[in-house]
Parts: sequence; C-alpha cells; structure tokens
Amino acid sequence: MADRLTTALTTLNGMSRSGFVDALGDIFEHAPWVADKTAAHRPFATVTTLHDAMLMVLAAESPETVRAFLNGHPDLAGPTAPAQPLTADSKAEQGGAGLDALTSDETARLAQLNAEYRARFGFPFIICVRRHTRDSIFSEFARRLKGEPVSEHRAALAEIARITALRLAARVDGDGVPKVNGELSTHVLDTARGVPAVGVSVELLVLSRDGSARRVAASATGAAGRTPVPLIAGRPIPIGTYEMRFALGAYFNESRDPAAPTFLDVVPVRFVVTEPEAHYHIPLLFTPWSYNTYRGS
Amino acid sequence: MADRLTTALTTLNGMSRSGFVDALGDIFEHAPWVADKTAAHRPFATVTTLHDAMLMVLAAESPETVRAFLNGHPDLAGPTAPAQPLTADSKAEQGGAGLDALTSDETARLAQLNAEYRARFGFPFIICVRRHTRDSIFSEFARRLKGEPVSEHRAALAEIARITALRLAARVDGDGVPKVNGELSTHVLDTARGVPAVGVSVELLVLSRDGSARRVAASATGAAGRTPVPLIAGRPIPIGTYEMRFALGAYFNESRDPAAPTFLDVVPVRFVVTEPEAHYHIPLLFTPWSYNTYRGS
Amino acid sequence: MADRLTTALTTLNGMSRSGFVDALGDIFEHAPWVADKTAAHRPFATVTTLHDAMLMVLAAESPETVRAFLNGHPDLAGPTAPAQPLTADSKAEQGGAGLDALTSDETARLAQLNAEYRARFGFPFIICVRRHTRDSIFSEFARRLKGEPVSEHRAALAEIARITALRLAARVDGDGVPKVNGELSTHVLDTARGVPAVGVSVELLVLSRDGSARRVAASATGAAGRTPVPLIAGRPIPIGTYEMRFALGAYFNESRDPAAPTFLDVVPVRFVVTEPEAHYHIPLLFTPWSYNTYRGS
Amino acid sequence: MADRLTTALTTLNGMSRSGFVDALGDIFEHAPWVADKTAAHRPFATVTTLHDAMLMVLAAESPETVRAFLNGHPDLAGPTAPAQPLTADSKAEQGGAGLDALTSDETARLAQLNAEYRARFGFPFIICVRRHTRDSIFSEFARRLKGEPVSEHRAALAEIARITALRLAARVDGDGVPKVNGELSTHVLDTARGVPAVGVSVELLVLSRDGSARRVAASATGAAGRTPVPLIAGRPIPIGTYEMRFALGAYFNESRDPAAPTFLDVVPVRFVVTEPEAHYHIPLLFTPWSYNTYRGS
Repeated sequence: MADRLTTALTTLNGMSRSGFVDALGDIFEHAPWVADKTAAHRPFATVTTLHDAMLMVLAAESPETVRAFLNGHPDLAGPTAPAQPLTADSKAEQGGAGLDALTSDETARLAQLNAEYRARFGFPFIICVRRHTRDSIFSEFARRLKGEPVSEHRAALAEIARITALRLAARVDGDGVPKVNGELSTHVLDTARGVPAVGVSVELLVLSRDGSARRVAASATGAAGRTPVPLIAGRPIPIGTYEMRFALGAYFNESRDPAAPTFLDVVPVRFVVTEPEAHYHIPLLFTPWSYNTYRGS
Repeated sequence: MADRLTTALTTLNGMSRSGFVDALGDIFEHAPWVADKTAAHRPFATVTTLHDAMLMVLAAESPETVRAFLNGHPDLAGPTAPAQPLTADSKAEQGGAGLDALTSDETARLAQLNAEYRARFGFPFIICVRRHTRDSIFSEFARRLKGEPVSEHRAALAEIARITALRLAARVDGDGVPKVNGELSTHVLDTARGVPAVGVSVELLVLSRDGSARRVAASATGAAGRTPVPLIAGRPIPIGTYEMRFALGAYFNESRDPAAPTFLDVVPVRFVVTEPEAHYHIPLLFTPWSYNTYRGS
Repeated sequence: MADRLTTALTTLNGMSRSGFVDALGDIFEHAPWVADKTAAHRPFATVTTLHDAMLMVLAAESPETVRAFLNGHPDLAGPTAPAQPLTADSKAEQGGAGLDALTSDETARLAQLNAEYRARFGFPFIICVRRHTRDSIFSEFARRLKGEPVSEHRAALAEIARITALRLAARVDGDGVPKVNGELSTHVLDTARGVPAVGVSVELLVLSRDGSARRVAASATGAAGRTPVPLIAGRPIPIGTYEMRFALGAYFNESRDPAAPTFLDVVPVRFVVTEPEAHYHIPLLFTPWSYNTYRGS
Repeated sequence: MADRLTTALTTLNGMSRSGFVDALGDIFEHAPWVADKTAAHRPFATVTTLHDAMLMVLAAESPETVRAFLNGHPDLAGPTAPAQPLTADSKAEQGGAGLDALTSDETARLAQLNAEYRARFGFPFIICVRRHTRDSIFSEFARRLKGEPVSEHRAALAEIARITALRLAARVDGDGVPKVNGELSTHVLDTARGVPAVGVSVELLVLSRDGSARRVAASATGAAGRTPVPLIAGRPIPIGTYEMRFALGAYFNESRDPAAPTFLDVVPVRFVVTEPEAHYHIPLLFTPWSYNTYRGS
C-alpha cells in the first residue's frame, strides 16, 4: 500500500463530506464516488461497518456502473509492459507480489492472459495481489480464466472486498478493523538439553515451481527460543510454498565437541500456506539426531 | 570399479602363483608385485586376512619402493585434463564421484591443487574417491594440502588401504570380507492413521555447496512403509550433505478430501553423512500437520 | 492349554481313524465325535483346512446335537465355585485369564451372570478366554447377556472356532496354521545421542478398571535397543489396557552427571489392545527432557 | 500460610515501629524481635531488600540467640503426635504437605527421626514444607540426618530463608517480591487435525513411593488447547514425582467413528519436579496412534 498517514475513525465520522472523500476517495480504485455516497451513512462504530457500507454502496449501483468500475482497474503487469495509469496503491501492491521482477517471457504470458480474460469476461482480471505469490497469481489466473461469467463477476467483487479491506485497515485507526493480516512464527527448542534454543539463525524463503527460492525474512532466536518479531506479521501471508531453514549446525558448534560427528546442519521445514489471514505457528523441537515440527497455535 | 567376475577365496588359495597374480595383480595400482609376494603367504582364512597380508607386503618394502608405488597413482582429473594412463578401476572410481562432470574451472582448480600437492609432498594426492562427493574431495584436498609430510604419507597409505579393500571386496567371494559398504534406508509411517505409509515417493539428492542438487536415488514405499531396497546399499555412502524428499501431498491426495487445506506437500529431510560405512536409517513419522524424523537403527 | 506333544499334520493324515480320534478328540470340548467324523475327510493340506473341516462337521449336525454340544461346555468359574468336570484344556485356559484369582465377590458375580445367561439362552456362556483379561471377560459377559438368542448362538460358535483354532495350532505341526497369535514389541532409542538405548528395563502391566495392575512381562533392551524377545509372543494378546514402563532414570544414571536435575524417571506408556492377533510394535524415542511413542510396524 | 490481608510495602515503610511489628512479627517463627530490629532499617525499596534485611538482623545475633531461635521451631508432626504450640503459619504449612494425613506408623517414624535429629544437632529439623511432598520430606530428613553439624546449621538457616520469603511474599504487596512460586502448565494439540485439542480432561496426581497417588489438580483444555489456569501456580511446586493424565479416549469419542479401534485412552505423562520455583511447561502433541511430550518453555 502507499505510505500515508492513518486517520482515526472518530475523526472521519466528524469530518466534512469533502474531507471524508479526500481521506478515503482512493480506497476503491478510481472511484471516489464510493466514499462520497458512503459519507451520508456516518457515523460508523467500527472500521468493519465502514467497509461494509462502502461495499453496499457499490452493490447498490446499476450493472453498467459496476462494470465501469471493474474496468477502471489496471491489468496485472510485468516491468516491460506498456505503461498504464496505476494508482499509488496498485503500484505498491503489484510490486510487493514480485510482478516488477517478471522476466520478459512472464510479462508476455501475463499480457496474453490479460487479453484472454478481458475478451472472455469484458473486464480486467482483478485479484488481491497482496495475498499471493507470483506462482499463485499465475495459477489463480489460469483457474479463473476457465470460470463462468457469473461466478467470475462474483469473484472479482470478492477480490475487491479484500483489496479495499487491506487499504482501509492501513488507513483508518479505530475499533473493529477487518481481519486482513496473518502471522508466521516459530519456536525453537533444544530437547536434548530441555531448554529454548538461543541464537539459532532462521531464514524464510518462498519457493517457486521453477525451482527458484527467494528469501523473504531472516532472524535468529532470542532467550525464549523465539525470534524477536514473527517472521511475517502485519500483512497477509501470500499463498504459496515456503521453507524455513534453521542453522542447527552453527548452533551446535557453539557448545559441542567439534570432533563429534555431524548429522543435522541446516534443517529445512517446507510448508504450504493456503490461508493468508491465519496464524501459522510452526515450532521446531530438535536434538543433534532428530527433530519434530508441527503446526501449533 | 571395473566389471569383473568374482573369484572364490578358496580358488585363490589353490591357484598357481601366476594365476593368483592374474586375478589380483591390479588390486594395488600398477603394482602386480604386491599380489606376487602375497601369494607365498597363502592360504588365507578370510578376505580380510588376505587384504592385511597385501598391506604388510607393501609396508615391508623400502621407502623408495613405497614412494615409487605412490607415484604410480594417477592424478584426480576433470574431463578436460590431459589424458593419463588410468587403470580400469581408477577410471570407474573417478567417474563415480562425479569428477567426469567437472566444469573447466573446476578442472583447472583440481590441476592446480594437484600441482601444489606434488610440489609439497613429492607424490600425487591419493584419496578413496568412492567414499566422497565432489564437495568433500575438494575440502579434503584443501585440508590435506596443509598437512605435514609424515602425516600425509600416513594418510596416503590409509586411503590406499580403503581403495584396495573396496576392490578386493568386489573381486573376491569368501568369509570375512572387510566392512566397506554403508546403507541408507528409511521407513515412512502415517501416525494420524497408525499405519505404514504405502506409496510415498522418495527422492534422494546430494546437495553441493554451490546450491546445486543431484538426484542419486528415487523410490516409493511398499506395504510396510519401506522402499523395496535401501536408497543406498552395497557401496560406501559418499561423505556429503543429502536431502530425502517425501511426496506427502501426493500421498494425502489419494485418500483425502481434495478441498481440505494443504499444509505439508513435499517434505525435505536434510542430513550430513560423515561415516560412509555406517547404516543411516532415517524414518519419517507424519500427519498432515506434523512430522518427526530421527537417526534410527 | 494342556501340555501335550504336537503331532505332524502328515502323521495325522496317515493314521488309523482311532489314532486320529486319540490325537484330536479333545479339540472340541467333550465331543470326540467331531474328530471321528472329520477323519473321513482326510488328507488335509493345511492345519487351517483341517480346522475348517471340523467346524463343518459340527455345523452339519442337527440343532439338538449342536445345542447338546454347547451344553457340554463348563461355566467360567472362580476358585470358590463348586467343582465341575473341566477338561485339561479348559482348566488351563481359565487359569491363564486370571479367573483362578477372583475374589469371592467376583466369583459370586460370575455365578450370577452364568445363571442369568443360561436362563436366557439355554446354554452356558462360551468365550475364548485366552483372548481376554478379567476386565474384558466381565464386560463381554455383560454385553452379550443383552444379545438376541440368534446372535448369541452365532457368537458362541464364533468363540468355539477361536478356542479350537488355538488348541489345534498348539497341537498340530504343519503348513497353514491359523493365525491365532499376536505380538507386542518395543524399540527404545536415545535420540539425544542418536543411538539405540541399551540396558533400559521395561515392564509390562495389565491395568484393571479397579485400579490394580498386574505385571505380565519384564525385560531389558539389548544392543539394538530391543528386548531379546517380544514382551508378548506366541499367544493372543488379551484384550485390555496395558502399560509399559521404561526405567529411563536408571539408564541415564549410567552415563550422566548425577548432579544434573532429573525430569524423566520411569516413563509409562499406556495403551489399549483390541486386536489380540495383531502385532503391536510400540517404540519409545527419548531424551532426558522429552519422548515420543507411536504404534509402529 | 494463614489467611491474612496483605499490606503494601509503602505502608510498612511509613508505619510506626509497633505497627510494623504487628504486621510482620510472625514472619520469623516466635521471633517478633526480628521485625522489631528490622524496622530501624526502613524504608525498603523492594520486598526482597526487606527480606534480606530481616535475614541480616538474624545473622547478626549471637550464636546462642540463633540457637534459641532455631529451637523455637515446632517439630514436623503427624496427626496423632502430642500437641505442640504451632503458629498459624506453621499449622497451615504442615497441613499442606499432607503431614496431617500421616498414618500412625508414619507419625511414629517422624517422631523417631525428630528425636534422632535433635539428639544429633541440638535443634529441631527445619524444612520449608511448602516446597516438599511427604516423600521428599522423609528422604530429605534421612539425608540431612547424616550431615555434619556445621552444614546442618547452614541448611536450617537456608530453609528459614525459604520459609520467610514465602510468608513475606504472601503478606506484602510491592515491587521486587522474591521469586518463591513455580508454575506447572500444559498445552494439548491434536496433530492429526492440526488444531488445539479442546475439551481434553487433565488430572494431576502426586505419586508416592508406596504406590499411592493423590490428585492435586483437575481441569480441561479450552479453545487454545490450554487449561484456563495453570495446573499449579502461585505457590512452589512440591519436590516429587507427578503424573498428568490426559483423557484422550473421551476426546476422540466426541468426533470419531465409535467402531474405530481404540489405541490411546488415558495417556499418563510422568515426571519429576526438582525445582519448586521453576516453570514446568509440558505440552502433549497427539494423534489417535502416537504422542509426544517434552519440557517446553
């Protein structure tokens, strides 16, 4: 999302109509009229009821207006695609999913999918890219391209609800913020010694189907065997395949006879994220000769 | 090793001296005289005592003769190195360690290490390549290059004992064969259902420090949750870093609601082998949400 | 069962009819005529086909004869019950299930259940006691007392099939012996050190609903972390609740700093057996601070 | 400890000397003079510095006074022992350790140990009973009876420091309260389903060497797989052997095919507590066929 100051919900409730539109006019892509019409329904007790009201304003419009709104969205585009007018939010969102690092082949593939999708459904492919990795965007694109017009229309609106919930949650302070963020955390225990494992380096990588891996976080465990902050927090966890890598060999070398035979060095834990808003807590319990991992809570 | 028929120890004990030399003259590199002098000590009760006798024949020689024998060994060489007279055994052994797949940079690096080693110690770098991966050959080479002449002389003879034990074990049938082979096996259990996991695909890869991975075995579990044969058996397990990859996602899909969220798909188990002649038994106990692995027995 | 010599199936096939009846006349309780009629169907290729033939001889009889045969079975009886004519097999079987150790209250309870059962179904309660513990006999008795006459008649014949299969398996040597025995085994691994745990004492107890525990086996692990023989083998595992107790504290004391804090001492693993003919393999993987157990294979 | 209101440290700092003695005169057994002399050292920044000051007042006294103070302590006594003047605190403490439930044999044994101890050392056996179970009191008694006078004198003062720290922590509110309490907690996860196990009944028992078990807590897991409050908190965990029992069978029956074979029913986890002030967090991860437990954090 774009870097903007947050506004308190109570402030929004008390603002002039034009101030309200200044503040929230860009939540719905190129459609400040959504904020304008929503202003009349103030005050809102929670950010979620504000969001619901904006969605209802959109739903109350004529099919032609909704279609025009959908058509106001940009295509997903690689770095070598022709320039298109992107809002600040859209630009930040697409970059975050790694679309700005697509190869020219991938950019071309994306352009072709865009063209096929528009030809079939009459509006651009809309997806909440902050919930996705490059791989899952392509697989969702292929899957939805085979959908029926009615279900695709519904899918586009569902994605818009997700996109706008994320934008609102970042822009408005107040009670009842929609649940838009997930969390990925770990806990590392040395069960041979019965203590939390301190000083274990942990890397988090996103794995692609093409075999490549991109590091998205790196940390080390502190006194309680936990990283100082979760590996991912304050944002959705993009749908995809991940690998945490725990540097146990380096940890053992701190305390162990260097002549002892090594068995475990870097321990990879690979898992699939399908629920971007969930808490994935994945501990590692280990000895020099064994380990155990699980989805915890 | 070269593909040759095996001979029974009892047959070797009863042969003419020249027949014995025909059979075992190439166990010690370019040194049929070792077999010739050993023939006089027959009969041998076990293959190990035969091997010990050959080593003692070598040890009884003058320093000059031993030095000449060491100098009869070929350099480790990449595919673009100048041709050298390799025995059939040496050629097979070097290929098995992946030296025939070295890049030209690596070949040049190897040639440079060879030159430094010969300059420092007066004989070629000798190592039992069947106990090593490409990575461990380079790291052993770097380590031994820093050794003292006395200890390196001893190291070279220790490697010759390993090389010739492997050749003898492959060539002679009989009691008391030296322990030259390791074993790598697994056992896969579905602890959510309390049964062996049948039909789980397992791949074994060797990982290199440069990030590349080479598949060295692939199998699938049978009715008892074990692969029909061990992933590695009947040979030393080359020193190095390995990864077994268990295709749990495909296994789950056989029996599970396809709409259920996925958490584990391919599970990698990464470990280090430091003892090529040992049995590494590494089970995997899993549920859709957890797993456990350990060095078993 | 009574201690008698086994006879080879081929010998039984070649015997005189009266010799055959001498050998197998007591397999069916007080009914040597079953063996006598079965003799005419010889030869038998397997012990299982011999057993099936005996069951078919019984099934071919008139309802009155079958009813008389059922009535030839003794009551289950505690030690203070009035004497009844027990065959050697019946006496041994009832003692094995611990019926000879019933209190006088339990004996009275059993006598009452016997009376109710006979009054309701017209024949004694028949159960293959070697597949049961005292607890499961009482719970089966209570459950079956509520059954319908038709299903109870079938249940009695099914139990007779189990009783006679066990007697035959103990008495006849040959191919195709019916599967009548279970096995209970363990494997103990020290995952802090990556080795089998040697010298760990293991006790096996049967637990009763009244809170009492009876030791049925005791052993210690050998070099491979396994007991020299399974804790139970060569017989059915009586249905019931069991506890294995592993003396880890004593094991640790062999090798550990005595001042180190203790966390695990005796580790109990409690489980329920519902399939007397199955293999229950229950390993224990432990460190001084953790353990893991599972039904393996 | 006796049920009394707590006083704020700041209040104690500002009180009259006689009010201070009224408030804390019974912290040291029958020795209000300790509080009286400590009053002069006010104010205290933390409860720990107040406690330290009281201990220093005692330590500064003559050997005869300290000996008289030790002799002011009651004997540990069973219910059938002759009455002795117990302070409210002592009475509550001894009852908590189960001394009021001793058999007459145990009471006699305790009286004999008391007599031997007094004869050997000249003062009664002093121990912080709130840190002990009946078993550990007897084993400490036997161990300390073999000690040397100098070390026993030191041991008695160390126990007094523990007793008085507990009394102060219960009586005074303020910063820097001495660490006198431990905690025993669990976390129960259903790893077959990847969720916290909700509604699992958990019992905590203290086991005695004589084979008896006494239930000291019972609870059930809530939505996060944790009990609403720790099984033990706000007090030391008495040194001894414990068993948590998890009613998995009842949990499975909520959601499982009743015809499915049972393997795990009640799962006992037995462990030894040696550090009464520590946090023992002992999770259970289970499936219907396996479980894993460890000392966590």
